[in-house]
Amino acid sequence: MISVNPQRTIEELRQLQALTGNEDGAQRLAWSDTWLKARQWYKDKLAALPVKVEQDEAGNLWATLLGKSDKTLLIGGHLDSVPNGGWLDGCLNVLAGLEVLRGIVENGTPPITVRLVDWADEEGARFGGSLFGSGAVSGNLNIETAYTLKDAWGNALPEVVGRCGVNLATIQNAQLQLKNALGYLELHIEQGPVLESMSLPMGAVIGANGIERYLFRFTGQAAHAGSTPMKQRRDAFLAAARWALAVRECAIEQQGVGTTGKVVTQPGIYTAVSGMCEISLDLRNLNPSGLAAQSAHAKQVAQQIADEERVSLEIIPIFDCSPTQFSADLVNFADQAIVETCGVSHRLPSGPLHDACEVCRAGVPTVMMFVQSLNGLSHCKEEDTLVEHIEMSIQALARLTEKAIPWVENYAD
Amino acid sequence: MISVNPQRTIEELRQLQALTGNEDGAQRLAWSDTWLKARQWYKDKLAALPVKVEQDEAGNLWATLLGKSDKTLLIGGHLDSVPNGGWLDGCLNVLAGLEVLRGIVENGTPPITVRLVDWADEEGARFGGSLFGSGAVSGNLNIETAYTLKDAWGNALPEVVGRCGVNLATIQNAQLQLKNALGYLELHIEQGPVLESMSLPMGAVIGANGIERYLFRFTGQAAHAGSTPMKQRRDAFLAAARWALAVRECAIEQQGVGTTGKVVTQPGIYTAVSGMCEISLDLRNLNPSGLAAQSAHAKQVAQQIADEERVSLEIIPIFDCSPTQFSADLVNFADQAIVETCGVSHRLPSGPLHDACEVCRAGVPTVMMFVQSLNGLSHCKEEDTLVEHIEMSIQALARLTEKAIPWVENYAD
Repeated sequence: MISVNPQRTIEELRQLQALTGNEDGAQRLAWSDTWLKARQWYKDKLAALPVKVEQDEAGNLWATLLGKSDKTLLIGGHLDSVPNGGWLDGCLNVLAGLEVLRGIVENGTPPITVRLVDWADEEGARFGGSLFGSGAVSGNLNIETAYTLKDAWGNALPEVVGRCGVNLATIQNAQLQLKNALGYLELHIEQGPVLESMSLPMGAVIGANGIERYLFRFTGQAAHAGSTPMKQRRDAFLAAARWALAVRECAIEQQGVGTTGKVVTQPGIYTAVSGMCEISLDLRNLNPSGLAAQSAHAKQVAQQIADEERVSLEIIPIFDCSPTQFSADLVNFADQAIVETCGVSHRLPSGPLHDACEVCRAGVPTVMMFVQSLNGLSHCKEEDTLVEHIEMSIQALARLTEKAIPWVENYAD
Repeated sequence: MISVNPQRTIEELRQLQALTGNEDGAQRLAWSDTWLKARQWYKDKLAALPVKVEQDEAGNLWATLLGKSDKTLLIGGHLDSVPNGGWLDGCLNVLAGLEVLRGIVENGTPPITVRLVDWADEEGARFGGSLFGSGAVSGNLNIETAYTLKDAWGNALPEVVGRCGVNLATIQNAQLQLKNALGYLELHIEQGPVLESMSLPMGAVIGANGIERYLFRFTGQAAHAGSTPMKQRRDAFLAAARWALAVRECAIEQQGVGTTGKVVTQPGIYTAVSGMCEISLDLRNLNPSGLAAQSAHAKQVAQQIADEERVSLEIIPIFDCSPTQFSADLVNFADQAIVETCGVSHRLPSGPLHDACEVCRAGVPTVMMFVQSLNGLSHCKEEDTLVEHIEMSIQALARLTEKAIPWVENYAD
């Protein structure tokens, strides 16, 4: 039995909010002074525990509680936030992990080694690339690209991370951190509306959606709104409009999501037919074949509509990431832990990317648990979760850890 | 028989282009030094004719050839252009009118008075409101608004037009210019693709479309593209997309046009469902009941779609102008004149607004003739018309004037 004091975690979350947030929300932008201040505050908490604290070559902060075996269970989260972020995103994970670590320590030396990791720059809010630290550890970080990135103020990534002790030349050594890791647990707020809509406090995350992103550019002919008969128009926007509606239908059919959130028309005035329309596509699906079907459909139907509307089409790939399936055993444990804590559970995929996806891609058995978000809101100061749900989530993480420790201990090498 | 020399007009159009254009096109922005230079060049041409030249209180330049009667036929056009405009838009009308005036003068004192007018600021490219001079003459110019307008450089309209001899306090006196006017003729490039698509040099314009303009604002809920299931979304853009397609269907049904050219989504990023979409609507129809049907349908179907998509709707009126029906007799004359000149004619409405609409709204029997535009292009340096078609259009204006003069002469007071 791992004993935790969820009230203490809530108090610590509020301390952190007071220390590193303002009236606009959390301000722990990765690599900033405020982020470093949050980490120092967190290290002061860790100092009370018999753990070894160290930063790896990618800037991730590891707290290691040595156990009777080298076999290792990881618990993770991230203290960094988006600018004007919420008070729970990422740091709930870390501070719930801290509380679970305290409970393990109370029980004496654990049978396996347990490590709590605060990933560096999960959000990618500063340089655009998410999952910096966990991506470095999994080997998926594009280091060549990292050398070229600049933030909004023109600061180059290598210099900015260099001030925090990270050197791109040696960053691949961070991959050694996963040596002996046989399980990874991550608690996170849902950041979406599913659990709230089902009146459920928590859910077990079965994996993360694969993602494909594209820019679709439809090019017709700009023309005078008064003098161009409807049948003679080559309206790029109307082609895009038809296509966006088809994207939605296919996403529903394939049980994925499809979003066309960025729309730019040119000339973009009242009195002209659109000669050009650029529209973004973000496709996500937990099922690789579903994602492939959505992607193929989006391209095929765009070409068909472009032909019908007598406009031309360009498709520019922006980003892709294959779906992640979490460990079946650990998902079962998470499900059970949630039922024990909340009386009811639900299995659901993660729409957003998380550090857990990188750890999973590196081959470590992984699971996440989601706790309900109010109004589905995140990445804003309105982000919130009921206090009783936060408390349940800390308890559930403790229950999950209890089940995961013997499972890792008995993991066949 | 009014004898004209179309080659001279083409030469004069090229002179004007060399004098007041550059590699980006025509630069005769109303009230600018370049526009004043164009007018001086035009006045020098008028000086060779026995006409009285005067500027009215709205800045319109009138050349009056007194006839045996006070009954007056007007021929009009505009020397002002949009920035980077074409070499024909507006000035073809004036210079063709000048050539017809020369032909009338050659025949001795005409039975009625003939006046050629160069309207001031037809384009509205500087202060946003089109048809400044003709609107002042018709009494439709909103003088209160005119006092408040500023150009892109922050110059106030009253000061800018003041430097050209226009005083808003006395501008309504310009309405006296229509005293005795019993007919108005205007030749214009089509600025659209209809005549070219039918392989016709010219067409008789039966009237001008009525126009209604609105901004439609759909408001749903911005949400994470990854974590928000399709069925739970309130996507403002997709509501706008459905609506824009319905607007097109109705425009075709009602034999009008409907344009949704300006589209703005918020937050407008790859990874978020659109919480807000603003989309412009420009409806035009020659038939008042058709325009009313399009307008009612656009509003009704927007509300229906908004309800279905669970988004809210605001409709902001921007501009409206009722349809204009030109004089049946003068349209017949224009049609005959075109058949006599080109062998074939076609009757069509005007999509764009023209000074002729203001004269018609003031109760003067009015007609326009269109000459084919290549590729339907205008308001750009690529604007062009075949030389043989320009020549035909000058001949056709002379034929139309021949028919209109006795018609005005015999007009019952």
